[in-house]
Amino acid sequence: MIKNRLKQLWSEGKPTINGWCSIGNSFTAEIMAAQPYDSITIDVQHGALDYGDVLPMFQAMRASGITLMARAPWLDPAIIMKLLDAGAYGIICPMVNTAEDAARFVSYVRYPPHGERSFGPTRAAFAVGANYAAEANDEILAFAMVETATAMDNLDAIAATPGLDGIYVGPADLSFSLSKGRLTPAFDREESEVIAALQRIVAACKANGIKAALHCGTPEYAARAIAWGFNMTTVGGDSRFLAAAAGASVTKFRELTKGDHAAPVQKGGY
Amino acid sequence: MIKNRLKQLWSEGKPTINGWCSIGNSFTAEIMAAQPYDSITIDVQHGALDYGDVLPMFQAMRASGITLMARAPWLDPAIIMKLLDAGAYGIICPMVNTAEDAARFVSYVRYPPHGERSFGPTRAAFAVGANYAAEANDEILAFAMVETATAMDNLDAIAATPGLDGIYVGPADLSFSLSKGRLTPAFDREESEVIAALQRIVAACKANGIKAALHCGTPEYAARAIAWGFNMTTVGGDSRFLAAAAGASVTKFRELTKGDHAAPVQKGGY
Amino acid sequence: MIKNRLKQLWSEGKPTINGWCSIGNSFTAEIMAAQPYDSITIDVQHGALDYGDVLPMFQAMRASGITLMARAPWLDPAIIMKLLDAGAYGIICPMVNTAEDAARFVSYVRYPPHGERSFGPTRAAFAVGANYAAEANDEILAFAMVETATAMDNLDAIAATPGLDGIYVGPADLSFSLSKGRLTPAFDREESEVIAALQRIVAACKANGIKAALHCGTPEYAARAIAWGFNMTTVGGDSRFLAAAAGASVTKFRELTKGDHAAPVQKGGY
Amino acid sequence: MIKNRLKQLWSEGKPTINGWCSIGNSFTAEIMAAQPYDSITIDVQHGALDYGDVLPMFQAMRASGITLMARAPWLDPAIIMKLLDAGAYGIICPMVNTAEDAARFVSYVRYPPHGERSFGPTRAAFAVGANYAAEANDEILAFAMVETATAMDNLDAIAATPGLDGIYVGPADLSFSLSKGRLTPAFDREESEVIAALQRIVAACKANGIKAALHCGTPEYAARAIAWGFNMTTVGGDSRFLAAAAGASVTKFRELTKGDHAAPVQKGGY
Amino acid sequence: MIKNRLKQLWSEGKPTINGWCSIGNSFTAEIMAAQPYDSITIDVQHGALDYGDVLPMFQAMRASGITLMARAPWLDPAIIMKLLDAGAYGIICPMVNTAEDAARFVSYVRYPPHGERSFGPTRAAFAVGANYAAEANDEILAFAMVETATAMDNLDAIAATPGLDGIYVGPADLSFSLSKGRLTPAFDREESEVIAALQRIVAACKANGIKAALHCGTPEYAARAIAWGFNMTTVGGDSRFLAAAAGASVTKFRELTKGDHAAPVQKGGY
Amino acid sequence: MIKNRLKQLWSEGKPTINGWCSIGNSFTAEIMAAQPYDSITIDVQHGALDYGDVLPMFQAMRASGITLMARAPWLDPAIIMKLLDAGAYGIICPMVNTAEDAARFVSYVRYPPHGERSFGPTRAAFAVGANYAAEANDEILAFAMVETATAMDNLDAIAATPGLDGIYVGPADLSFSLSKGRLTPAFDREESEVIAALQRIVAACKANGIKAALHCGTPEYAARAIAWGFNMTTVGGDSRFLAAAAGASVTKFRELTKGDHAAPVQKGGY
Repeated sequence: MIKNRLKQLWSEGKPTINGWCSIGNSFTAEIMAAQPYDSITIDVQHGALDYGDVLPMFQAMRASGITLMARAPWLDPAIIMKLLDAGAYGIICPMVNTAEDAARFVSYVRYPPHGERSFGPTRAAFAVGANYAAEANDEILAFAMVETATAMDNLDAIAATPGLDGIYVGPADLSFSLSKGRLTPAFDREESEVIAALQRIVAACKANGIKAALHCGTPEYAARAIAWGFNMTTVGGDSRFLAAAAGASVTKFRELTKGDHAAPVQKGGY
Repeated sequence: MIKNRLKQLWSEGKPTINGWCSIGNSFTAEIMAAQPYDSITIDVQHGALDYGDVLPMFQAMRASGITLMARAPWLDPAIIMKLLDAGAYGIICPMVNTAEDAARFVSYVRYPPHGERSFGPTRAAFAVGANYAAEANDEILAFAMVETATAMDNLDAIAATPGLDGIYVGPADLSFSLSKGRLTPAFDREESEVIAALQRIVAACKANGIKAALHCGTPEYAARAIAWGFNMTTVGGDSRFLAAAAGASVTKFRELTKGDHAAPVQKGGY
Repeated sequence: MIKNRLKQLWSEGKPTINGWCSIGNSFTAEIMAAQPYDSITIDVQHGALDYGDVLPMFQAMRASGITLMARAPWLDPAIIMKLLDAGAYGIICPMVNTAEDAARFVSYVRYPPHGERSFGPTRAAFAVGANYAAEANDEILAFAMVETATAMDNLDAIAATPGLDGIYVGPADLSFSLSKGRLTPAFDREESEVIAALQRIVAACKANGIKAALHCGTPEYAARAIAWGFNMTTVGGDSRFLAAAAGASVTKFRELTKGDHAAPVQKGGY
Repeated sequence: MIKNRLKQLWSEGKPTINGWCSIGNSFTAEIMAAQPYDSITIDVQHGALDYGDVLPMFQAMRASGITLMARAPWLDPAIIMKLLDAGAYGIICPMVNTAEDAARFVSYVRYPPHGERSFGPTRAAFAVGANYAAEANDEILAFAMVETATAMDNLDAIAATPGLDGIYVGPADLSFSLSKGRLTPAFDREESEVIAALQRIVAACKANGIKAALHCGTPEYAARAIAWGFNMTTVGGDSRFLAAAAGASVTKFRELTKGDHAAPVQKGGY
Repeated sequence: MIKNRLKQLWSEGKPTINGWCSIGNSFTAEIMAAQPYDSITIDVQHGALDYGDVLPMFQAMRASGITLMARAPWLDPAIIMKLLDAGAYGIICPMVNTAEDAARFVSYVRYPPHGERSFGPTRAAFAVGANYAAEANDEILAFAMVETATAMDNLDAIAATPGLDGIYVGPADLSFSLSKGRLTPAFDREESEVIAALQRIVAACKANGIKAALHCGTPEYAARAIAWGFNMTTVGGDSRFLAAAAGASVTKFRELTKGDHAAPVQKGGY
Repeated sequence: MIKNRLKQLWSEGKPTINGWCSIGNSFTAEIMAAQPYDSITIDVQHGALDYGDVLPMFQAMRASGITLMARAPWLDPAIIMKLLDAGAYGIICPMVNTAEDAARFVSYVRYPPHGERSFGPTRAAFAVGANYAAEANDEILAFAMVETATAMDNLDAIAATPGLDGIYVGPADLSFSLSKGRLTPAFDREESEVIAALQRIVAACKANGIKAALHCGTPEYAARAIAWGFNMTTVGGDSRFLAAAAGASVTKFRELTKGDHAAPVQKGGY
């Protein structure tokens, strides 16, 4: 089985950058995988896509040599195992709030005797090389998301879960939950309470010998996160990149041509 | 409602052969259904497909007269009921480990008063003839998979579940679990411990008046399973057939043309 | 965020009519949305479609100004949140049988501090206007389906669930369950026991300040339901409209042309 | 090869009714094929669909026993042959304006020595029975559309084309062209100039021993067309049936509930 | 029929900016249409998409109020008419090299008596308002691409084609052809021979009362083109925006984190 | 740009084997590309697929290192150029009957000054490495199919077409046409008239310094073709492999279990 390149990079002490796919399309996936990411994650939770999109996206990214992962929509064995069978080298699981959640998550990702994953890597068998049954437990990453006040309460127990490889932080949900809805959910928070929580997560990961990862909006914030001790950061994502770059080109054109006519009114559908 | 042909064949004491679809495509399904199978199952668990593929595949196989079933991805009422509404004449449910699991499974497959299936056979109503509401409970098959050490511990209780039609054995997971990961998961096991387990399952099925089914890799092993008392066997599957036949033709060509140049290096994507 | 037009119409005391999509196609959705409905619901439970169809259907209906909702396949946070992220202004949840079910359902639909919905309205953010995080909890409707004898037993507790907007009645399942399978599941029931149940639901909704909605087969029955106090009714649905209208045209043609030759035998596939 | 049922019905002097699919969806196709049509045509010209939709639609209708045809988008050998390979038992070709057009059309539909169709019925081979190569030329129908003033000028020559099975009339285009844009394109024309043209077409068909077919909007007009001598009529189509039936149900509901609130403004997208 | 907003803006002397979709996905289309473009064109020629993608993309962009167009893959009546039936308000036709080509192109876009477009706006009828048959000839734009040396030789005759609305310039092909392959095909050329050709095209358009449009890579070049007299410019496109923005974020991250480890080797597939 | 491996193998005097994809699915494509083929061709002419399937299939096969080609549906610049933009390293064009056909075909495949291909390799640019514009004319293969009596009459002129890389023989159509419909179309002909034609084609290729390729049904016949001087052979194809292997397993099972019950009657749909 082809080795997980992320594990190797981390073992060399290198920070990694993860790409993020929210668009359900194999061509956008191939474009993303043409950039020099270390890993790319397909977001099956909040992305505008589901399992049916994941398979051709993994296929389109296979030639890139980038480590491919998926965020599961929920702590659900059916979809987690389907994503693995489709070839994922890592699963990010949202809303892991307790040590029991974390243990269940790990059990879905690992084959016996370390878990209860069912065997049948139908597509993976064609894509990842030999000895999948024997080596998958070692190569595949299990990242639990800590993103609620409850999860912070249980942080140490979650981080200590046997077989867990790391904690992935969703700062939007985490701020939302920690502040009981006061903070608008967003990335790249500057509030000291959020930064303290992030640093506490890094510490818990280090204490348990696992990796810490953070979802960021900008490279600048990501670099700060790396300095805080995060091992992996996600920066932006396909739908945000597209909207920002297209919008900027129109704005620039209007400025340069002094075209100040109103754009057509965007009509919401509801 | 059109009668379930499998039930009729079994009532005549005939062994049946089940086809297996892991490719999410209506044309491969139609090709499979052009072969003289007794039944065909779409694998929504490990197959490289999901619900969105099942509907056109069932439609493409409808004209064949073959009994159509689906393996659910997990013991989950949402997808089990959707597969039934799409027209499945049988559900194979993975990882049924306890009598309670088995009872929940049956309840998802049966309408009141025998279960809690919700009514709305949107596509089935166009495909299976009249009186679906009244007859579906009788015609639709519920197969629980026994494929873990825990399930073997609970075998008799599972087999005794009212409304269960049979036990379907996944030998890969079963060997993996029984051996605590020692045996590489595969079909057509020769280890005496596995064969003993298979035979114990047949006995439990017979004792409870239900059917036993086995997933096999070759017709030869399937024939042995029939001799052991299994009522239905699956032999191979679409993706394996394609890979084996295509690969064999290349190998033969190389032999005949003495073409010994290296194939391009298969590049794994991760 | 664009206001929910259903809430406004109800606040003016107006009854509303809801369209129903069971066909997974963006063109049929656009055709439905060209009719003057107040709201349209995509049926992800019994419809011949799944999440992958919902996104383009919502997009195709966006320009219509009609309030768009989805029926979830089950009380499952993964799909409920995905439907919301795709832009749903309301969720109808099947098989809500207890107050605990209802509370879980509401928690999946609401952001903190009123629930545990995870933040990431990837497509919704492009379609519903600004301030989604702050206003979604107010604009999005949560309808629990009461459709079993158990749910009727718990009706008042369900109706009293904080954050629930209404009860949606599926008369087919409700009759099936109340009669323990005696009544064939269908819409537009005339049995006094069913009508009494419907009226009891209206009363419970009014007592708790929430809305009552009924799935109907004809405008005539829907008008009676409105007179009983229902606030919203669904009348028919896309697949039924198509089958009925196409069938009627053939029948009429045969009559007029005295063409009495037998139609080809419909061959069921199983 | 399964016999073409249309040819048999016509040989018995029976008029036939053809269904029309403009929606690119296998479930709407299956619903249409559940009605007692004699034939159904998928409209690849003006329908909201293309080749990729045709294959699953033909598969979904296969079990019905109804003769399946397609309208090609244009007189183009690539798509005509692909529709045939997908299993069409007849092709309706738009805008056949000259005898040369008609001869080219026939040549694309027939194998040597009667035409230049290329051999490779990849899907048809699985669906229509044995001896396709030998019998396809006899079973497959070639209908040329006469729908312009130019075509009317060349009517007799077109009708005399060897191998042509019939003329299919598109009354919208024909009226539009005959009137040089004066008449709004529509079905079921009452203008005497149009009716005269229709009757002239019937006469030309009869004189050449081929069939005449007319696209109609209502069964009533279709019955008149049969009385004029047409052999086949199309009545309505899936998208029109759906729009009309759904719209009628809303209108009726509004009447019955005296709900006169304005529908949301339909926002055109351009 | 809803008025073509581009025509109105031009009549007010305003330059317009056109968005460009090469990704076949309804969500990327909706993201593009959330930017304040005046028009958006789906590229069916070089885009990684075909007709099957166009329909949901037009639907997803409908609510934006932006004028929607398509570039046809070639001067082919079948696809040009299908794109129009799908709702396009304008067609850009590649490789129009002669006045005869231009006249054929116009004839495919216009209904009688101005052309030979066949009537059947199946989806457009639901999306663009009433009176389509009467008004489509006035609202729909026909842009011929001048992008070869031959076309430049025939420029005045092409520009004089009755019914043609404008000339759209593809600078990559034009430079490639004018230089007989010497210049690498690209946008935003600075060679005087290319700029002279562009200005000659503007002059020919003005002399014939039609519009000139240019495909550009940057807003800066587009602004220069507007100054030269072009009425419309395209700036970039979805796939380029995505690749550039994603790539820039990785580069920035590497800089900031001093992460200089090599990216995985991109493996071409051939 | 990545070098065309076929050209290299032929320069070393090695015969090559080409895989054939008639199923429109990215997973079957990935399975085919896991076999040690030298090249794989997607059949857009007779395959049950079209352009929309080609893109994800090319993506799924990219990592294999196998040279990827497509058979165009017809001599049509629109689709030929789209297939190239999608990343094809070779085009096989059916029904090339004259030298003029062959010259047109070549012109569609080559950029100026050697042809009139339009520039815009939207997906290819992400998949085949740098310098596409400069190197594509050298790397991409143009194979004309000689498969009619007319083409045989013009064989030498076709083979002499500048820029043509080879002749691909479709023996089914060729036998059908040469025999004026007497011979049933099939592969692996033994009639001396066909074998003479094949050998004449090899000779014409050699005389003109281009390659000869033959579509075969078995490795045995392919090896004979190599011995006759063909440079490349196709052996079988995905749909045939699947049907044969699945059917053989059922037959074997029936033999071994003495299960002689009749299979369900395959019901053709027409």
